[in-house]
Amino acid sequence: MPEKKKKPEPTGNHVSVEMEMADMVGKPLGGQVGSHPLPVRKKSSESMTSDPDLYYSVEDLRSEPPPGEPVSNRIRPMLGQGKHEAGALFFKDGYRRIDYVLAYPVPRRKHPVKVEHKPEDDSSAFHPEGEDQKARRRREFEKNLIEAGLDLERDDEGARTKKCVTALLSQLHGSQIASREPTKDHGMCFVRLHAPWKVLSQYAEILKIKMPTKKIYEIKERAGIKAKAYALWRKTIRPLQPSAQAKQVDKEPYKHISYTFSRDKEHMFLIENRDTFFLPSTRSLIVHEILKRTRYSQKDYAIGITNLIAQGVYTAAYPLHEGEFEGDTNIPPNPRQMLFDEWGSYSKFVKFQPLNLIRNYFGEKIGMYFAWLGLYTKLLIPSSFVGLIVFLYGVFTMDDNVPSDEVCEAYNITMCPLCDRECKYWRLSDSCKSARFSHLFDNEVTVFFSIFMSLWATWFLENWKRKQMELNYAWDLSGFEEEEEQPRPEYEARLVKHRIEQSDKTKTEKKVYVSSILYTVSLSKSIFKDHFEIVELGEEVKLPKKQTLFAVGVSSVTILTMFTVTLAAVFAVIMYRLSVASALAIYPNSGQIVSGTAVTLNLIVILILDEIYGSVAAFLTQLECPRTETEYEDKLIFKLFLLKFVNSYASIFYVAFFKGRFMGRPGQYIYAAPGLRMEECGPGGCLYELCIQLSIIMAGKQLIQNNVMEIGMPKLKKFLRECTCFGLCKERAERAEDKAGPRDTRWEEDLVLEPFSGLSPEYLEMIIQFGFVTIFVASFPLAPLLALVNNVLEIRLDARKFVQELRRPMAERAKDIGIWYNILKGITKISVIVNAFVIAITSNFIPRTVYQYMYSPDGSLHGFIDWSLSTFNVSDFEPGSEPRDNRSLGEVVQFCRYRDFRDAPWEAEPYKYNLAYWHIFAARLGFVICFQNFIIFLRDFIGYIIPDVPKELDEQIKKENKIMMDALIHEENVRQGEVDVDMEMEKEPL
Amino acid sequence: MPEKKKKPEPTGNHVSVEMEMADMVGKPLGGQVGSHPLPVRKKSSESMTSDPDLYYSVEDLRSEPPPGEPVSNRIRPMLGQGKHEAGALFFKDGYRRIDYVLAYPVPRRKHPVKVEHKPEDDSSAFHPEGEDQKARRRREFEKNLIEAGLDLERDDEGARTKKCVTALLSQLHGSQIASREPTKDHGMCFVRLHAPWKVLSQYAEILKIKMPTKKIYEIKERAGIKAKAYALWRKTIRPLQPSAQAKQVDKEPYKHISYTFSRDKEHMFLIENRDTFFLPSTRSLIVHEILKRTRYSQKDYAIGITNLIAQGVYTAAYPLHEGEFEGDTNIPPNPRQMLFDEWGSYSKFVKFQPLNLIRNYFGEKIGMYFAWLGLYTKLLIPSSFVGLIVFLYGVFTMDDNVPSDEVCEAYNITMCPLCDRECKYWRLSDSCKSARFSHLFDNEVTVFFSIFMSLWATWFLENWKRKQMELNYAWDLSGFEEEEEQPRPEYEARLVKHRIEQSDKTKTEKKVYVSSILYTVSLSKSIFKDHFEIVELGEEVKLPKKQTLFAVGVSSVTILTMFTVTLAAVFAVIMYRLSVASALAIYPNSGQIVSGTAVTLNLIVILILDEIYGSVAAFLTQLECPRTETEYEDKLIFKLFLLKFVNSYASIFYVAFFKGRFMGRPGQYIYAAPGLRMEECGPGGCLYELCIQLSIIMAGKQLIQNNVMEIGMPKLKKFLRECTCFGLCKERAERAEDKAGPRDTRWEEDLVLEPFSGLSPEYLEMIIQFGFVTIFVASFPLAPLLALVNNVLEIRLDARKFVQELRRPMAERAKDIGIWYNILKGITKISVIVNAFVIAITSNFIPRTVYQYMYSPDGSLHGFIDWSLSTFNVSDFEPGSEPRDNRSLGEVVQFCRYRDFRDAPWEAEPYKYNLAYWHIFAARLGFVICFQNFIIFLRDFIGYIIPDVPKELDEQIKKENKIMMDALIHEENVRQGEVDVDMEMEKEPL
Repeated sequence: MPEKKKKPEPTGNHVSVEMEMADMVGKPLGGQVGSHPLPVRKKSSESMTSDPDLYYSVEDLRSEPPPGEPVSNRIRPMLGQGKHEAGALFFKDGYRRIDYVLAYPVPRRKHPVKVEHKPEDDSSAFHPEGEDQKARRRREFEKNLIEAGLDLERDDEGARTKKCVTALLSQLHGSQIASREPTKDHGMCFVRLHAPWKVLSQYAEILKIKMPTKKIYEIKERAGIKAKAYALWRKTIRPLQPSAQAKQVDKEPYKHISYTFSRDKEHMFLIENRDTFFLPSTRSLIVHEILKRTRYSQKDYAIGITNLIAQGVYTAAYPLHEGEFEGDTNIPPNPRQMLFDEWGSYSKFVKFQPLNLIRNYFGEKIGMYFAWLGLYTKLLIPSSFVGLIVFLYGVFTMDDNVPSDEVCEAYNITMCPLCDRECKYWRLSDSCKSARFSHLFDNEVTVFFSIFMSLWATWFLENWKRKQMELNYAWDLSGFEEEEEQPRPEYEARLVKHRIEQSDKTKTEKKVYVSSILYTVSLSKSIFKDHFEIVELGEEVKLPKKQTLFAVGVSSVTILTMFTVTLAAVFAVIMYRLSVASALAIYPNSGQIVSGTAVTLNLIVILILDEIYGSVAAFLTQLECPRTETEYEDKLIFKLFLLKFVNSYASIFYVAFFKGRFMGRPGQYIYAAPGLRMEECGPGGCLYELCIQLSIIMAGKQLIQNNVMEIGMPKLKKFLRECTCFGLCKERAERAEDKAGPRDTRWEEDLVLEPFSGLSPEYLEMIIQFGFVTIFVASFPLAPLLALVNNVLEIRLDARKFVQELRRPMAERAKDIGIWYNILKGITKISVIVNAFVIAITSNFIPRTVYQYMYSPDGSLHGFIDWSLSTFNVSDFEPGSEPRDNRSLGEVVQFCRYRDFRDAPWEAEPYKYNLAYWHIFAARLGFVICFQNFIIFLRDFIGYIIPDVPKELDEQIKKENKIMMDALIHEENVRQGEVDVDMEMEKEPL
Repeated sequence: MPEKKKKPEPTGNHVSVEMEMADMVGKPLGGQVGSHPLPVRKKSSESMTSDPDLYYSVEDLRSEPPPGEPVSNRIRPMLGQGKHEAGALFFKDGYRRIDYVLAYPVPRRKHPVKVEHKPEDDSSAFHPEGEDQKARRRREFEKNLIEAGLDLERDDEGARTKKCVTALLSQLHGSQIASREPTKDHGMCFVRLHAPWKVLSQYAEILKIKMPTKKIYEIKERAGIKAKAYALWRKTIRPLQPSAQAKQVDKEPYKHISYTFSRDKEHMFLIENRDTFFLPSTRSLIVHEILKRTRYSQKDYAIGITNLIAQGVYTAAYPLHEGEFEGDTNIPPNPRQMLFDEWGSYSKFVKFQPLNLIRNYFGEKIGMYFAWLGLYTKLLIPSSFVGLIVFLYGVFTMDDNVPSDEVCEAYNITMCPLCDRECKYWRLSDSCKSARFSHLFDNEVTVFFSIFMSLWATWFLENWKRKQMELNYAWDLSGFEEEEEQPRPEYEARLVKHRIEQSDKTKTEKKVYVSSILYTVSLSKSIFKDHFEIVELGEEVKLPKKQTLFAVGVSSVTILTMFTVTLAAVFAVIMYRLSVASALAIYPNSGQIVSGTAVTLNLIVILILDEIYGSVAAFLTQLECPRTETEYEDKLIFKLFLLKFVNSYASIFYVAFFKGRFMGRPGQYIYAAPGLRMEECGPGGCLYELCIQLSIIMAGKQLIQNNVMEIGMPKLKKFLRECTCFGLCKERAERAEDKAGPRDTRWEEDLVLEPFSGLSPEYLEMIIQFGFVTIFVASFPLAPLLALVNNVLEIRLDARKFVQELRRPMAERAKDIGIWYNILKGITKISVIVNAFVIAITSNFIPRTVYQYMYSPDGSLHGFIDWSLSTFNVSDFEPGSEPRDNRSLGEVVQFCRYRDFRDAPWEAEPYKYNLAYWHIFAARLGFVICFQNFIIFLRDFIGYIIPDVPKELDEQIKKENKIMMDALIHEENVRQGEVDVDMEMEKEPL
């Protein structure tokens, strides 16, 4: 080691951090004898990348390209660097790819820092006392990373002064860093990680990652009519394919069979170049796996990057984006550019999503989300179409349907007033317009459409199951098993705190506290000791139930309170409507105004509560302190779903099933509050009101929440960020002017992006929408169309967000969409029963049908309106509730009519429900039973005839398994033969 | 090779079969140079086993125990041979285990057979022309088996003369062999297969079989109250554990982590002895895998043992039972004995099944069945208990419930006659007994019990899902993927036939016909040729759709016809009942007799049709000629289930929902046939009749079908077999007397056992029973108890059958119970709606409730009976239908009462349904909606709160994955270090 610095024995005391770091990095580690030159580190305050010498890294022979490999492999990746050196994705040497970046802030100090080795205690584990301890942990961690086989490249600490970056970070990640340290005199330091082939192949084998083998087969065109139809179909949708994918499909009639990667079968895999064999997303996954497992201290619980980030030892850990998303059209475009062009562009809204690109870039979990969203949007097309037809049917038959005509001609039917005292008697013909309008949504086709949509929902779910299987196959996920997760840092911290409290209490007992990720140690019996390696799995150390129980209790109470708040809000709007309505009763047409303002009020309340509930749910889940990330997510989703679902639908449920049902009858009204009669459905009927309510809430929610806020918020945030960090902008502007000057590196640019915060909000938004589309679809056939328009935008919006605004997320693997599938299924089930009741109770379908088939003299609907109105003797009004104006059209009113099925005042038991009422009631219930069971039957039938795994795919998978197995056996036999021959050969000379 | 015979070049012509066989076997094969002595084959007509020299086999060095291994390994397995040499499970050498046996009949000939090599054509592929061709195929097959690495040991052809065995075989396997050849002068020949370690380990790796590793961990006792309760529970059920399992549980608080077997990690696995590392079931699975893949001719389709068996080249292929199932209590008992003692013994009926033993012996698929049956039976205990309590509640409240009392005291209520003309008026008090009796089943608790049973069914399914997961974990099935199956021989034969027909038609086109298991060959593009190994997957060759379509059509029509037959049978019984009832109307108490005979008739019809339908379903499925065994099974199950389900339940459905509903009213009866009024429910009510019907059919079916026939049939068959093969028995008797004489070998004894024919009948029987237990449980709370009693017997019965009567089946792997789970789920769904309707419509629950809460003056049921009867004016009888005897108790009857809710004759519209009718009707429907949705909600809730994978298991699996992964990484690093050191070492001297 010619240029390596001579150093005293690393006692660790009074040695500058930088010095020690240099030593550590240069030292041979992990059983390898390093004998390669290490570039001398020069002190320099210039930007690191501007000086080619200013870096140091473990120049490990292992990752030098093997001598046998062509030079092109060495040079090739250099092309991927893009135009400017500054945005490079590689180590300084130009061929080792940066798979992950760790970032941390370092104070720039005049003097070397004194590192004191004082014993760490548990309490400090999550609250490092200062920069020293942080630096020590970083050092230990990075040492262990190198031991695990990773290559590291790091910046010169304190080389750059970037107040702004730190300021920004403190903004992004709370006050963690900023509060503890002065914001000036700071630099951002980056550690770049590269996983060499050895590590990659080793972990790919352990993680059972499937990779394409050399074994390929030709997918033959099918023959016959079916094949021609298929070819025609493919040709038709050809323009809809994203261009990258289309090219790929055209080019490759071959399929490489995938198989779990295994090093001793390396020759069987399709390895053209070891550097590019594993996808960037797989590489980042593997590095993340290592980061997760690496210790940073000798303590039991001192494992993993998430803990370090939580402690502020590092600020962030992320894989790099692959270059700029826009800019000069360099050929070939980098994957990020391709994604931006093919996927994030609004002009491509008619095209399919380039799913494989998405998966390759962001990993399977995010790929699944977009595949799901894409399928949902695609399947919304037929339902929108049918919904539109149903709506148009309503439009075209609006003018010639008997009940509306009868309403419009009913000049001589005097209706009872809609409110006490102030309201007047009114003629039925006054409600002509709303009767015609309500026919748009309340007609014979509604039932058909409800059935259609219920089946559509099932069909969608079945299709998704199939799509999921296809993706699992195409993305080689079939062998992937879930592994135990590490506890969340918050949980660990709580646990440590709990332990300290406990040990304070029972100091004399001298308990051994170990982390929850290890297990209580017990002595193993000696007989086994000799033979086996024993891992003792005792009871895992967990937080006592009491603590969580308390949190769960608080959660439940809070959620119930929130429900009450939601209901109170709905009730408040009702009260508003009632009081304003009775106040404005004397003005004509005040009804529309009151309804309009009430619904808008509803919408605003929903939007505000949604935001509040989001925070409440997050707060409650943090309070419960779940052990793992998955548990956290599940609990959060559960709470969010409950709160937001109830919030979105409460007012709609009220209109559908409660409004107008509990108002009593003239002369015996029921009062919500003294003087405020319970609401009656407007003259257009209840379904009409439901439709208005639904359409406004759905459209408003989507427009405001999904689009305005999703587009607006990032812009706003960016704007704010730019304002608060004027320095950076200035610096940037300066740099942009001075083109020769240093540019931001890729990792710097990515650091200032928003970190990815999970898919839950995206899913939830869509699930609530799915509810609008299915649950009340009987009342509003245009809902699917609204959803479709929204989603077409949504996809591109999300795409831009992921490509442009977010830090690149770690490429997680996922076989399915998890809990969301069950929620979708639950909504589908709810939708069947709700639709059944909407048709049976809210709409006029059943009374019309009963009249037509049981009461009508000529089998038509003529006379239906008259039949559906009961008669009231105005002298039976409760004193004080009769209208002030006892005249209608100048005549004193003696009898008024109201919507109900009761005996007339002159019959034996006046105002008692008549036989027709019971007929209709029985018919309503009968309809619910038939509808529900019919749908359930059809649904199960659809589920039965659509196999979960597409038949062709199933055959193909099995065929591939067989081919692979045959190949393996063949290979074995060949190898066997060779070995045998070898053995013979060896024997020969003896 | 000192003693090897000198032989001319094997031209194949004019060489005796035996000679050639000897040559082939002795010749070095598969790339190995054999240089070991081969025992000279002596001609002898003595029984092979009596002469130790009389055998020959491929004495392959490979399978000699490695020199390093202790001698004990060589000797140890000898102990397992049992008492007598004849029943040995090992090759002659005493240490190579027999993993599979192939049997074939060989004619004993005086002169060497001339083997002519005439070219085989396709047509002969499935109809070998004679013994020559068969022998050639056998030879080729066995050669290829040796090449695949198996060791073979074969009998001397024709050495033994056993007419009887052949006669037996012809009986077992149809006339295939017997018809073609004279039954005399025959011998049975056996080829015994052994899979050496090399083959086993190779296939275990390829088949991804999980095996226990040395990595073990201690399962710690949990602390706290929960743990104590658990320990207590375990102690309580300790006596119920089968003794073998109990010992195991007590002994082992350790668990070996399993991992997919891999040869290069062999040192990590728990290999104490390579000979016993793989379970016998795994060994047979692997050998079967090889047998499936081995060719027997150069033709494309000439693959696999199943084809050879279908062609009669071999008669049977089976793994051996491990010794006698009973006999001297030798210590330690062999696994078969253990199974027989612990599992097949009736005295052990209270004990759990030794599932692990079953799985180890019969494989996972059969293990799954018994695990399922065991769980089902176990969970029947609580439901039987609750059912019994419900029944007892009925018994204890029988004497003091108001409606029955009122019926018994209703001396003055004259009821309308039950049939035209002949029947008399009767007093309601006459039906006192049946009213009291019907209270047993039709009381308030029935609703509760229905809800309970619906939830029980869900709970059972959820429990099974969990159990399945546990078994998957315990039996290491998680990594198992299904592979493409081979077509059934019947399908292949049909395909060949079809091709020949086709080629006859289009001889000039000169098509290349390949088998369906290969694929049409196409030239691959040259660019790929150089780089990859291409498997061309074109369109698979399948039978044209037309052929299958026709068969499917026939099937559908036949099934519909069978449905009609079932319904006709039900109708015939009804007609019988009607006509006999009216004929016997004058005799008192004839009702019971008529009902009794009718139900018995129903039962007999069901039993007969069940047998017929079994054959019909099998015939139809064979007609459809499905491609693979799984397809065949699925189609057969589907048909069997449809036919048997409809057959079993048609009459019960009739009684529940149709009987007594369509009878009209007095004066306006509806007639099934002239003079035969539609049936009315008896005086006890419809539920009472349903109960009788259900109990008799269920009890009768189980008693006769499951027990009498299942016990009786094998005995009968055995008896018949013994009669027809008197020779064998005589021989045996002689041998038994002459104890020094030769005994039957294990393979001979197993050959005469009944071959295993699949689990479908066993499952189906249980599924039909599950239907009885759930679908109509509202009417018969004792059904679970009946089922429980039956199943406790059934388990032991099946156990004995499997251990004693059946040839040992190949140990198939299965992760679940397949299609049956879905069928169970379907039945659960049907049961909810049927139970809802039974309570709402068949029972009197709703009328009683409506009366109590809407009509009763004092909120009690007093007056209910009177309220539920309508009045009829006898003068309104249709002429000719009035009873001959117009008196009751001596007085002329003017009004009679009947069960219905209609207006009285003196009201405005006589006999019109009154308001009470509509109230009840609405209540019935409302009840159905509430009940159904309540159950669905609860069911989904149960499904939600019971996770599919038990939480602890889930954690454990993840934990194990993590431990294994850590271990692998650790091991990698250690190995890495060693390699690095090695490399250094190697470099050193240079």
